[in-house]
Amino acid sequence: MTTVFRGARARGAALAIATLFTAACVASTTPAAAPAPSAAATANAAPITVSPSSPIKEFGTMWTFDAPPLQYWKARYGFDATPEFLDHLRLSAVRIPGCSASIVSADGLVMTNHHCARSCTTEVSPKDSNYIETGFVAGTAADEKKCRNMVADQLQSIEDVTATIQKAITAATPAEQAAQRSAEIGRVQQACAKETGLQCQVVTLYQGGRYSLYRFKRYTDLRLVMAPEGNIAFYGGDPDNFTYPRYDLDLTLVRIYDNGQPLKASHYLKWSAGGAGEDELVFVVGNPGTTGRLNTLAQMAFLRDVQYPNQLDQLKRQNAVLKELSAKGDADTKKRYQDVIFGYENSIKAITGYRSGLLDSSIMARKAAFERDFRARTNANADSRAKFGGAWDAIAAANAERASFATAARFQAPTGSTVLTLALNLVRVAMEEPKPDSLRYAPFRAPNALAGTKAAIGREIPLDLAQERGFLATQWEAALAALGPDDPFLKAALNGRKPADAVAALYAGTKMTDAAARKALLDGGLTAINASTDPMIILARVLEPLQRAHALRTAALTATLANNAEKLGQAIYAAYGTMLPPDATFTLRITDGVVKGYPMNGTVAPYKTSFYGLYARAAEFDGKEPFALPRSWIAGRDRLDMSTPLDFVSTNDIIGGNSGSPVVNRRGEVVGLIFDGNIESLPNNFIFTDDVARSVAVHSRAIPVALRTIYNAGRIADELEGKKP
Amino acid sequence: MTTVFRGARARGAALAIATLFTAACVASTTPAAAPAPSAAATANAAPITVSPSSPIKEFGTMWTFDAPPLQYWKARYGFDATPEFLDHLRLSAVRIPGCSASIVSADGLVMTNHHCARSCTTEVSPKDSNYIETGFVAGTAADEKKCRNMVADQLQSIEDVTATIQKAITAATPAEQAAQRSAEIGRVQQACAKETGLQCQVVTLYQGGRYSLYRFKRYTDLRLVMAPEGNIAFYGGDPDNFTYPRYDLDLTLVRIYDNGQPLKASHYLKWSAGGAGEDELVFVVGNPGTTGRLNTLAQMAFLRDVQYPNQLDQLKRQNAVLKELSAKGDADTKKRYQDVIFGYENSIKAITGYRSGLLDSSIMARKAAFERDFRARTNANADSRAKFGGAWDAIAAANAERASFATAARFQAPTGSTVLTLALNLVRVAMEEPKPDSLRYAPFRAPNALAGTKAAIGREIPLDLAQERGFLATQWEAALAALGPDDPFLKAALNGRKPADAVAALYAGTKMTDAAARKALLDGGLTAINASTDPMIILARVLEPLQRAHALRTAALTATLANNAEKLGQAIYAAYGTMLPPDATFTLRITDGVVKGYPMNGTVAPYKTSFYGLYARAAEFDGKEPFALPRSWIAGRDRLDMSTPLDFVSTNDIIGGNSGSPVVNRRGEVVGLIFDGNIESLPNNFIFTDDVARSVAVHSRAIPVALRTIYNAGRIADELEGKKP
Repeated sequence: MTTVFRGARARGAALAIATLFTAACVASTTPAAAPAPSAAATANAAPITVSPSSPIKEFGTMWTFDAPPLQYWKARYGFDATPEFLDHLRLSAVRIPGCSASIVSADGLVMTNHHCARSCTTEVSPKDSNYIETGFVAGTAADEKKCRNMVADQLQSIEDVTATIQKAITAATPAEQAAQRSAEIGRVQQACAKETGLQCQVVTLYQGGRYSLYRFKRYTDLRLVMAPEGNIAFYGGDPDNFTYPRYDLDLTLVRIYDNGQPLKASHYLKWSAGGAGEDELVFVVGNPGTTGRLNTLAQMAFLRDVQYPNQLDQLKRQNAVLKELSAKGDADTKKRYQDVIFGYENSIKAITGYRSGLLDSSIMARKAAFERDFRARTNANADSRAKFGGAWDAIAAANAERASFATAARFQAPTGSTVLTLALNLVRVAMEEPKPDSLRYAPFRAPNALAGTKAAIGREIPLDLAQERGFLATQWEAALAALGPDDPFLKAALNGRKPADAVAALYAGTKMTDAAARKALLDGGLTAINASTDPMIILARVLEPLQRAHALRTAALTATLANNAEKLGQAIYAAYGTMLPPDATFTLRITDGVVKGYPMNGTVAPYKTSFYGLYARAAEFDGKEPFALPRSWIAGRDRLDMSTPLDFVSTNDIIGGNSGSPVVNRRGEVVGLIFDGNIESLPNNFIFTDDVARSVAVHSRAIPVALRTIYNAGRIADELEGKKP
Repeated sequence: MTTVFRGARARGAALAIATLFTAACVASTTPAAAPAPSAAATANAAPITVSPSSPIKEFGTMWTFDAPPLQYWKARYGFDATPEFLDHLRLSAVRIPGCSASIVSADGLVMTNHHCARSCTTEVSPKDSNYIETGFVAGTAADEKKCRNMVADQLQSIEDVTATIQKAITAATPAEQAAQRSAEIGRVQQACAKETGLQCQVVTLYQGGRYSLYRFKRYTDLRLVMAPEGNIAFYGGDPDNFTYPRYDLDLTLVRIYDNGQPLKASHYLKWSAGGAGEDELVFVVGNPGTTGRLNTLAQMAFLRDVQYPNQLDQLKRQNAVLKELSAKGDADTKKRYQDVIFGYENSIKAITGYRSGLLDSSIMARKAAFERDFRARTNANADSRAKFGGAWDAIAAANAERASFATAARFQAPTGSTVLTLALNLVRVAMEEPKPDSLRYAPFRAPNALAGTKAAIGREIPLDLAQERGFLATQWEAALAALGPDDPFLKAALNGRKPADAVAALYAGTKMTDAAARKALLDGGLTAINASTDPMIILARVLEPLQRAHALRTAALTATLANNAEKLGQAIYAAYGTMLPPDATFTLRITDGVVKGYPMNGTVAPYKTSFYGLYARAAEFDGKEPFALPRSWIAGRDRLDMSTPLDFVSTNDIIGGNSGSPVVNRRGEVVGLIFDGNIESLPNNFIFTDDVARSVAVHSRAIPVALRTIYNAGRIADELEGKKP
């Protein structure tokens, strides 16, 4: 089934899962000046010039706190970042699950996005109400509501452990090396945790070119202080998601408690009186989740020409099915499908955005120029040439092979049908269960993998059969066009019939929609499977070897790609040092940028929006969803200064995971709160540009105004602004 | 020199020049039902189905009043357009120079765009002030100010004169046919004027497929009643031009006087109380200037691949020169260049927009499908095949030939330099003057052509030599890249030097910047020219034969193209009848559409904007030009209902010349005032789509509100709304 994601928000959440929150240490980060390029790079008269005061723009500005580009900032902005400035920002920032956040008062008030605290806001809601809809304001400290699962990690120190990790890797094969690496990372983390009592995480930078040990102090008692209504936090809903101009108050305030009392924060960000101004230098401090800027041209071409088009094709086909079902359904059905459709359309928007960068010849030309330079630097040194020089061609070859069977792999699959997926697993369990664990098909080898699959097969699950039939029919229509009627899977599936007719017969004839029937077949083992005349099982038996062959081939190529990606990571660090910031890793970064409008849709987008604009959008859509205003905002309208800034854009380099990051000025004061990137920033996934790509933030001035005027929350506004109550 | 145009406004104005305002007749238009397709078309099982109730969408909806698509309107909207409805709209509409307008009160009040009455508003301004800046409201009828040159033409009748015109064309060659056609059109117009006392115009439809005699009643006494400030009429200036969302009150009101008294209008449009509503059927009645929807694929490919890229390349190069000059200049210089740069950027925006349609494969595929259908229908009938069947290939061949020497023609030219152009004309006058008129180079053959050129050569004219040098240097840089250093013109121009150095030496050495020196050389005739050692004259002598050869070749191909375009016009009418509306001709059309937002920039554009949005845009750009509000709007802000609609979009089919057209509802009431198309509508030049292309109009509700609240003009608002004073 397709993974449908919903913008910056969900990307952040997904990343949290992949992030390590394991063990614990103490120390202080001492930012070192960015190292000079390696001798090999300096010796080579490459076409791209790079120096500590002029890094390669295309790699963006997601700087780690142990290698801030001090000379670049000085040269570009005339700004001297002191160790105190950087330590203050680092210790004022906290990482929360899937997102970024910052401490913004002496009493441990924490600012993040509404969507980052969504689960807390939901779980502390009363039974008969939902704070996501109604909003929430704690009138007094006693009213602040404890979040069950929220933690906040404050970065205490960073230590380069590259040598330690690399020394432990002595084996010859990629698979053995991976096991050694994993074991050594675990050992370092555990030792650190034991020694310091902190959360310790070894972060893999440059695809394995560097390893850094990050030590965090973890706070576990966080309480909800204030959340506006979802309608104003996510104003404009899915249509406006990823876009600008924007009118969102995407804010939630929680408070860190320590030993049952509000945290006496040693570091917190002060509030700026004026907020972000046009052309102003600003920094964003937060945890960007993942980027692919070290991708080679071949990897980008594969995404552009194979993976993204295939994903878009499937999303669009399935979305058409959903729209048809929605159109035919009653009001409830329509609403249900509408939510799914919005999710699909957001995914289509996102992937189209990523792909647009890969289709942009000027962006690809910049990438190609970099790759030429990088290869030349790598090949200029005999040692690095021997170690890394073959990686580009190996990656290109692996991608070419992936492309060669991508169409068959795509359509010889149970895509769109949960029932067919269950039937396929039934066949596989029957085949694999009798084998000893070490000889099983890899996905069934992990502890409990077989048991888990068996449990899932026998469990009652909700099935939307109308949707399944629609998805499968559109899938087979597309398969027929791509593979032709003689494809072995299609031959079995269609048997000369039209896809819709074949699907209808398949579902009419199968019992596999029934959990008890699946369970019974499961219990019968391979003999029962082989004897089954259920059409879904018959089809699954044909599909199984075809799909498995593709999966095995893909897994082998993925390992080759990872191994060569790691080589390039080592090579890039050797060639350019920290003048290229590493790809995002959902750990703390600081990015510089400027508050700035941009050319848009034939005209210009302003650097900021205003309350006027919010009420304009509501009026211009006649107050229809998702442009309806909460009642509090309708009631408070005449008390607002309409020209107050609401959101703004800047050229900072952010991505999913940065949600909730503070935007600060040269004095380290809060001028904004990151909550999204514009649609033009999606290609920044692969190559950073700031012609029209922008990060989108709530303007700091909107927050106390809304707190006082709309939410009667002067207590909190005073605390933010550092005023005595 | 490049013609720089500034959006819908200037396109309309330019068209006025090409429009015939000649002679005069009386009658009444009797709308006929749209004729059925020809027998040939009906007999042919072509893939495109077309019927009176379902025309071909790609040709748009610019219907003539003598062939309204009654069955289509009925089928599409359930709307029955009666003859009375259509006569009422036709007689309420008036054409003014370059624009459209409508009578909107019983006392002859006429509504049009601010930019359409600009020359009147300027000329009636007092010496020490300018109503374009300050706005103007006539407090009483006595204060209404007579416009010197404005006329209003009211369409009385349309008569098909195709047979008359075609009968007069008996000659064999295209050139002789053109002369006969022109003479017969003149005769018909003069006879009509003499007989009726009206303005009579024979309109060429379908590129010569049909000829219609349009008879107009002309009003010549028009007086300025009300004009808002230019800043609110053209709010957002050049950046917002061609775009949406938009916040313009692009309105001027004038009044027709008849025999010194306000016109007692037999027909006028009543004001709608509610104005345009979402999804509402609306009609726009006005004079679209020109479209190229009958262009063949070969013509479109030539524009896409040759003409537009060349224009864009030149505009961008020259714009870069202007920006450099602007950056180096003082405040006055900056301002002067800034205006020119805005004009360039609008032209770049427009041409990029037109070209984007031609680059859109789905649009081109639709055009290709139509062309296949059209050719099949044409070739299905032996007679039409013989007459018209060769036209497509002839057009393709002519365009291929144009493309073959387009690069040489482009660079073997005096582009960018007025002085070199004057020198070239000096050389030509000297060559041509001794010849008898009939043997002269064509441009010097017309009466007074030679005398006019001579006068221009000897006249003092302002020269911006810094700009000329910059333009010529960038032109020669591009020429060198395109033609290489061995090109005969470049060899003479550069003589081995860099373009910038060659240009500097050329201007340092020439006397041709001085009018007296040019006059002296002119008086010396061919002998003096041939003996001249002025480097500009030496270069012009090299350029002359090269440039002339290209011009002669281009003229011959243009005649071929016109001749074949006329064949296609006849063929298309034969194949489809009036189910395809003819290309725009700056005569009265009625287009149907729906008030509707659209997908934009990743989100959705609302169907209307509001005063909220106007004040938002002002606040969000910190009140900077061109987003500054006039003082009257700042002062009146708190008296306005901010949610009042200001502008809106609809799917009506408009183009330059439609400026000032009324938008009416099913009852014929005014719901809006057209003033622009969005940037997405630019490709509609060639093929009509309404997925994202929209016409942009002032909402009728904004007008009386602004008149009463901002302009203290209750008298006029009452008149518009039909209220007794």
